[in-house]
Amino acid sequence: MSRVKVGLIGAGRIGTLHAEHLAYRIPGAELVAVADVAIEAARACAARYGVPLVSGDYHDLLQSEEIDAVVICSSTDTHAQIIGEAAEAGKQIFCEKPIDFDLQCIDRALQAVGDAGVKLQIGFNRRFDPNFRRVREAVAAGQIGMPHILRITSRDPAPPPLSYIKVSGGIFLDMTIHDFDMARYLMGSEVEEVYAVGNVLVDAAIGEAGDVDTAVVTLRFANGAIGTIDNSRQAVYGYDQRVEVFGSHGMVRADNETADRTLLSDAQGVRAALPLYFFVERYTEAYIAEMEAFVEAIQQDTPPLVSGLDGRAPVVIAYAAARSLREGRPVRVGEVDTR
Amino acid sequence: MSRVKVGLIGAGRIGTLHAEHLAYRIPGAELVAVADVAIEAARACAARYGVPLVSGDYHDLLQSEEIDAVVICSSTDTHAQIIGEAAEAGKQIFCEKPIDFDLQCIDRALQAVGDAGVKLQIGFNRRFDPNFRRVREAVAAGQIGMPHILRITSRDPAPPPLSYIKVSGGIFLDMTIHDFDMARYLMGSEVEEVYAVGNVLVDAAIGEAGDVDTAVVTLRFANGAIGTIDNSRQAVYGYDQRVEVFGSHGMVRADNETADRTLLSDAQGVRAALPLYFFVERYTEAYIAEMEAFVEAIQQDTPPLVSGLDGRAPVVIAYAAARSLREGRPVRVGEVDTR
Amino acid sequence: MSRVKVGLIGAGRIGTLHAEHLAYRIPGAELVAVADVAIEAARACAARYGVPLVSGDYHDLLQSEEIDAVVICSSTDTHAQIIGEAAEAGKQIFCEKPIDFDLQCIDRALQAVGDAGVKLQIGFNRRFDPNFRRVREAVAAGQIGMPHILRITSRDPAPPPLSYIKVSGGIFLDMTIHDFDMARYLMGSEVEEVYAVGNVLVDAAIGEAGDVDTAVVTLRFANGAIGTIDNSRQAVYGYDQRVEVFGSHGMVRADNETADRTLLSDAQGVRAALPLYFFVERYTEAYIAEMEAFVEAIQQDTPPLVSGLDGRAPVVIAYAAARSLREGRPVRVGEVDTR
Amino acid sequence: MSRVKVGLIGAGRIGTLHAEHLAYRIPGAELVAVADVAIEAARACAARYGVPLVSGDYHDLLQSEEIDAVVICSSTDTHAQIIGEAAEAGKQIFCEKPIDFDLQCIDRALQAVGDAGVKLQIGFNRRFDPNFRRVREAVAAGQIGMPHILRITSRDPAPPPLSYIKVSGGIFLDMTIHDFDMARYLMGSEVEEVYAVGNVLVDAAIGEAGDVDTAVVTLRFANGAIGTIDNSRQAVYGYDQRVEVFGSHGMVRADNETADRTLLSDAQGVRAALPLYFFVERYTEAYIAEMEAFVEAIQQDTPPLVSGLDGRAPVVIAYAAARSLREGRPVRVGEVDTR
Repeated sequence: MSRVKVGLIGAGRIGTLHAEHLAYRIPGAELVAVADVAIEAARACAARYGVPLVSGDYHDLLQSEEIDAVVICSSTDTHAQIIGEAAEAGKQIFCEKPIDFDLQCIDRALQAVGDAGVKLQIGFNRRFDPNFRRVREAVAAGQIGMPHILRITSRDPAPPPLSYIKVSGGIFLDMTIHDFDMARYLMGSEVEEVYAVGNVLVDAAIGEAGDVDTAVVTLRFANGAIGTIDNSRQAVYGYDQRVEVFGSHGMVRADNETADRTLLSDAQGVRAALPLYFFVERYTEAYIAEMEAFVEAIQQDTPPLVSGLDGRAPVVIAYAAARSLREGRPVRVGEVDTR
Repeated sequence: MSRVKVGLIGAGRIGTLHAEHLAYRIPGAELVAVADVAIEAARACAARYGVPLVSGDYHDLLQSEEIDAVVICSSTDTHAQIIGEAAEAGKQIFCEKPIDFDLQCIDRALQAVGDAGVKLQIGFNRRFDPNFRRVREAVAAGQIGMPHILRITSRDPAPPPLSYIKVSGGIFLDMTIHDFDMARYLMGSEVEEVYAVGNVLVDAAIGEAGDVDTAVVTLRFANGAIGTIDNSRQAVYGYDQRVEVFGSHGMVRADNETADRTLLSDAQGVRAALPLYFFVERYTEAYIAEMEAFVEAIQQDTPPLVSGLDGRAPVVIAYAAARSLREGRPVRVGEVDTR
Repeated sequence: MSRVKVGLIGAGRIGTLHAEHLAYRIPGAELVAVADVAIEAARACAARYGVPLVSGDYHDLLQSEEIDAVVICSSTDTHAQIIGEAAEAGKQIFCEKPIDFDLQCIDRALQAVGDAGVKLQIGFNRRFDPNFRRVREAVAAGQIGMPHILRITSRDPAPPPLSYIKVSGGIFLDMTIHDFDMARYLMGSEVEEVYAVGNVLVDAAIGEAGDVDTAVVTLRFANGAIGTIDNSRQAVYGYDQRVEVFGSHGMVRADNETADRTLLSDAQGVRAALPLYFFVERYTEAYIAEMEAFVEAIQQDTPPLVSGLDGRAPVVIAYAAARSLREGRPVRVGEVDTR
Repeated sequence: MSRVKVGLIGAGRIGTLHAEHLAYRIPGAELVAVADVAIEAARACAARYGVPLVSGDYHDLLQSEEIDAVVICSSTDTHAQIIGEAAEAGKQIFCEKPIDFDLQCIDRALQAVGDAGVKLQIGFNRRFDPNFRRVREAVAAGQIGMPHILRITSRDPAPPPLSYIKVSGGIFLDMTIHDFDMARYLMGSEVEEVYAVGNVLVDAAIGEAGDVDTAVVTLRFANGAIGTIDNSRQAVYGYDQRVEVFGSHGMVRADNETADRTLLSDAQGVRAALPLYFFVERYTEAYIAEMEAFVEAIQQDTPPLVSGLDGRAPVVIAYAAARSLREGRPVRVGEVDTR
């Protein structure tokens, strides 16, 4: 099978991470171009990974006949536009989450993808984490029977800069969106109603920016199950990423990954390692696996494992959560879905 | 210090359990009388533990000058009445939870206790579990900083008989009431608002009886923290009793107790023991510890560790939860408190 | 079934512990007499547990027709003598380990027991620990196939007083003897050869007293399996009691028991509880279970679960270990067995 | 800093593994040549990783001025010869373990390295495992005080082919040699005496080939500590690689790595994942880290972290273990060291 020729659009932190994987870790792919409006960033990335084509304009990549697929890691406000153009250009598309903050924009982009008949995979990397994947497999295989209760704990080690918070779209669109996707993935059922409680407990400045830093969200699923997500912008002990699904015949849960499995016992107690610090440390394997899956979907012409609709659904849930927090009541997902 | 002479009122399952502890495990107490309207039950219990005085009428115990304290384990609908009379008779009182389903009855009973100047300890045994006590101590000592998020998982191994469900007062007054107490105990802050979601997923007959068997409850605390409780009437792997408190400087959590600490590894996987089956197995030490604390409070004339108000508060929260479930909206605790 | 009337001989620490269990925790037994050459100790014990008969001479107990069984907790040098006399008096016998330091004395005592046709159970309490019992059951049930390797870690939290060390018979007869018994129990096979290495690493005074405080013993079993035991007189983190059996189809191991199952995560690490401090904390349930088993063996006229030969074998192994350490070579058990 | 140009000698399984790391995972290295007497293997490896120079004769690499360093992964009997020639050619040398089975050969090779003033790093990859490294750091930092007892469990998931067993040099030179190195690494003290017990319990054919498949080795260290290693050629549950160091102020231990951290609880029990299957799965990160360290030692002109003497010492210990097994007695390392 010939290698998939990939162009990277956006050479920031997450773009560079994907570039390294495409260059070194994914035999089926060949990274042939890098574009970034900050041309220096594109150049640096290209030099580091030996990429021949560099541009300050992603249109150069879309026009290149050599390129099979694009990986979109530019800023969120550009995703929908680039998806649309890339689809028209007939490129296979991987796009970082979220597609957009605006549902109509998302729908237009998905329409373009559908019309062009290209593939679109959304970067919900956590689905490819070996732990969550194992939990999903156990649920899907019926090992816990019918799912009744879902619990997700998702806490970051430290809040992002305030400047980022202000343009993040709020905690639900920025952070909980991953958990909304995880909820759909693990349960295999759609979220119908959301109730969100939040508070500013970590940093008053986050509150002044109009956001919350601590939240608990209750989910009602179409299959009757109930879920609960808890978020914090600051867990001093590191990235806390755990899930649990309880059902009629059992329970499956995933604990955090740590740097090692050592225990130190002394007169004060028994000490184990902290969770891996943040998403780069915790999800490296997942980032590689999602890109491998994208490349494989292209090579074997199969549907991507995280579809455009999978990218849209968590945005809708996030809207419902935000309204719930604002209005202090449970909100049905249908209330905020414009479709 | 002279031993506290105790009379037991109600010789059912929980009464017999307390009788055994009072007879054998608590050096500071002497079990001198047993009363039960089912006189045969009282006789059997007395014979088993060598108790001299037996009666079919608890008034005999209240009138006995020999008896310092009563332990009330009769049916819930008799608690408030017996508390009132025991207080008037000047007895120290231990009463199983809940005090009553009716807040006015509770208030009258607490009034009587206050007027008589006797002690009243409510049987929230889980506060005396070494795990939860350790969690509380860590929180109280500031080891996790300011508490932000509370998580309680509380699942029974199997539902009670349907006949019991029908008179139980509903899942929140019967089962979650322990978790509401645990929430107040662990957080050291009052619950101000409750949002409850529930469903019938375990047994349709429970739904026909007007109750739910699966529930998730969100709590807002006066100190700004947020809590979430999840309940099921049936965890096939045994009694699932875990708590977690997350705060500004860390997290403390308690996992389940198991019968042993062995691991068996074979070609299929690594297997560990299940949680202890149910409350008798899990909380034996806690039942003994709460009774020791009661006896010690009498001997040293200190306030009981679980007061009458501690008995009242979870009933109010349970009312708020029930209304929330009924009305599909968050309910402030003040809405249901008649005081 | 009528209760077994028990007389306690020796009211020191371990005797008092058994007295409490016989008085309160074992329904099938009745503690009716306590003897101790230190009559005050006997009196204190009897008063504490309401025992009617007290004596400074154990012969009073042997002569009492009321007494069915004796529990021997006197000093080791008196065990064999008392066993012999108790057997002649027709009493059922529970004796603390070791039977004696001298094999000929042991053999005479076992002979007397055999001649009298009474039961003799030796106090190897660890066999009744739920963890080790579970490991034994897994091995016996073939869950790990044929056993190949045994690992025992057995470390005390702190050395005994030097005065005790001097009369203890040495680390192998005093401390490792429990592990030799555990080895036979878990493997269901006899030890044929021993190689012991030891050193003085904890306290030079122990070396000056002619003993070692740190030891590693290699065992060869009749079934071809190999075992290794490691001992220390001082584990600052508490009583370290772990076993592991590895076999053709898997492995089973038991970790330490701790006071609770909490985990505290903060910026420094994840902390769990230490092992239970020492044998009283760790083995309370095992002490009760061994006494229950003794009482049951009498009531149902079945062989005791830890026989006189089970009491003799670890003494022989300890002798082989001591000689191995002295002579710096592996020693076959047959070399030191006088029989 | 310029990249280190590396030539690979030997393109078998372990050679190919190093080739992949040198090609993709170690930015400081450039894989420029591959040699193997089986020229097809060299060609396949070179093609896979885009290596320009291929040869059937490693002398081509030694003569190339372009090559800074060689990585020797040929068969053991060629190691010493190639080390000597590579040293004379002025190449930096990484060599897989063991250097040789013959101490005089080893000494000649080390002499050549010393004379040439080049670096030699031996492939004891386990030193670079994050778990064992963390244990070593804890010991070296004094976190457990003075080390007293070392325990190493090292069991393979399945025996190698019988043809391999026959030329392996025996279990101690082939398998335990890693544990001997680990013992020296963790304890920071030399082994002075060895006692080995072994048996054929896994496969009778291994015994017929003159080897054992199950072994327990006792080590005495210069610092007075005692160690015990247990080995099996077949752990059906996977690669079992655990260590524990116990000392005057505490204990540190490392448990196995598993594929995930999930737990599945159902009516039968709680199930966790098995250990990673074998050395490729378990030690990938360690293989990369050792090669990074080699490259760094060259670039920064520092001594390699695993020296030639570190490669020699475990061979001597293995000889002592083999003699101990043969003669049934403890053997001092000095007895077998020809130097």
